[in-house]
Amino acid sequence: VEREGSVHALIDGDEGLGQVVSHKAMKMAIEKAKKNYFGIVGVRNSNHFGIAGHYSLMAVDEDLIGIAMTTTRPLVAPTWGIEKIIGTNPIAIGAPVENMPPFLLDMATSVVSTGKFEMHRRKNKPIPEGWGIDKDGNVTTNADDVLIEGAELPLGGIGEILGGHKGYGLSMAVDMLSGILTNATWSKWVKNTDEKNSNLGHFFIAINVEAFLPLDEFKRKMKEMIRDIKRSKAAEGKKIWYPGEKGELTMETRLKIGIPVYNKVLEEINRIAEDVGVERLK
Amino acid sequence: VEREGSVHALIDGDEGLGQVVSHKAMKMAIEKAKKNYFGIVGVRNSNHFGIAGHYSLMAVDEDLIGIAMTTTRPLVAPTWGIEKIIGTNPIAIGAPVENMPPFLLDMATSVVSTGKFEMHRRKNKPIPEGWGIDKDGNVTTNADDVLIEGAELPLGGIGEILGGHKGYGLSMAVDMLSGILTNATWSKWVKNTDEKNSNLGHFFIAINVEAFLPLDEFKRKMKEMIRDIKRSKAAEGKKIWYPGEKGELTMETRLKIGIPVYNKVLEEINRIAEDVGVERLK
Repeated sequence: VEREGSVHALIDGDEGLGQVVSHKAMKMAIEKAKKNYFGIVGVRNSNHFGIAGHYSLMAVDEDLIGIAMTTTRPLVAPTWGIEKIIGTNPIAIGAPVENMPPFLLDMATSVVSTGKFEMHRRKNKPIPEGWGIDKDGNVTTNADDVLIEGAELPLGGIGEILGGHKGYGLSMAVDMLSGILTNATWSKWVKNTDEKNSNLGHFFIAINVEAFLPLDEFKRKMKEMIRDIKRSKAAEGKKIWYPGEKGELTMETRLKIGIPVYNKVLEEINRIAEDVGVERLK
Repeated sequence: VEREGSVHALIDGDEGLGQVVSHKAMKMAIEKAKKNYFGIVGVRNSNHFGIAGHYSLMAVDEDLIGIAMTTTRPLVAPTWGIEKIIGTNPIAIGAPVENMPPFLLDMATSVVSTGKFEMHRRKNKPIPEGWGIDKDGNVTTNADDVLIEGAELPLGGIGEILGGHKGYGLSMAVDMLSGILTNATWSKWVKNTDEKNSNLGHFFIAINVEAFLPLDEFKRKMKEMIRDIKRSKAAEGKKIWYPGEKGELTMETRLKIGIPVYNKVLEEINRIAEDVGVERLK
């Protein structure tokens, strides 16, 4: 811990695993929020922290609002640009809801996360138009064109007409908070996680709603807002979901029947398992 | 002021003008941030507060990071919905930059702000595909179809394929912070500003970067990040802008040559001027 106040702290991740320091940082934010209503903790000198939503849910488990964000490697082009220079920089926002799965928005600030490109590549499927551009800045349906010489597009897509500059701006805001404010670095300088010293930065916020209103009232109103939206008129044959609802269903299913894993991934996991001498997965 | 702590406060807007109470709220956030590094101020029982970015810039003028957001009337459909049930709920994030116009992202969480629909309607121009849907949930290029019986679309557009659920989730997050946490109400219940008691809520945050690093270093790194992006390769014939840059240019021009106003708007302003007995605009 390099700096600390009653509601904030800055932690040096010491080039270790992102998950370890991030768990500690969100724990610290939670403690501060319980004591002083707010907890705002930055991390520098870290590596890939896994899933942003996980840290938000740590706060939600303690009946707090939880926000987590992180810099990533540069994989996205800014509006009108064609070079990978900004990150997919995800933001996760979670909050408890009365008698329902928590609200959890966990989003890359690009159109989709890089994982979606990888999945299409593995399946040899074309990507939808609007996810990425090739090296000349043209929209392409070939995942390789995007990942190798092109770039992913910010949320809102190409140009400004559908708000691509908003996704680009959000990505910069995440770099500002998790990269610059934490004294780490911004996406252009974030290295591949295979290399040492990627100097990723993360930013965690926990908010104790009791600073403003009783917890029960907050949770009840969250439920009512969600109910209002879910009861509103849906398009023919469609259902309205709220952020976090699908993830919760997936979790329930997987706790029952297990986690599906691609054969290629399974092979890789087992290769690592043998390397470190633990049991193979079946 | 209903509640107050060292870094936070909740203010009752007393059904007055949104601009008045919001100015006061951001001032308060700024004072707290100067003294205790962070200022987090909610407002309930308010009305339309004008431009979100204005409040962020109040903080930036004091060399702080400034964030402002607000609930709005429901004008947007959630993903797979066809009813106006969530707000255009804007978020503005501003920060000082060394020797350059400030970073200022000021964005509706819908594809475009409602004003853009109004402008197309005034000019009798079709709207671009992807801004809104008609009453059956089909994408339309008719602004009236959207504004009267249809709905605006969240950032990311229709469905989930290009991330429409992200704009929808961001809109809900803004409702959560500025509507529910402030003890105001969420967009479904926000009334037209012509009616009394719209009970709009706003949420303001000021961050003193000195909590984490020296101000000069922060501003220099912001400049370097922006410079890296602006120097990256642009698409043929295009220029890369950063959030806030275009607005700054517009302001400079207008300070020199004045603000263009539509004749219809000018007539309305002058009708009001006569009503209240002040000089007409020419």
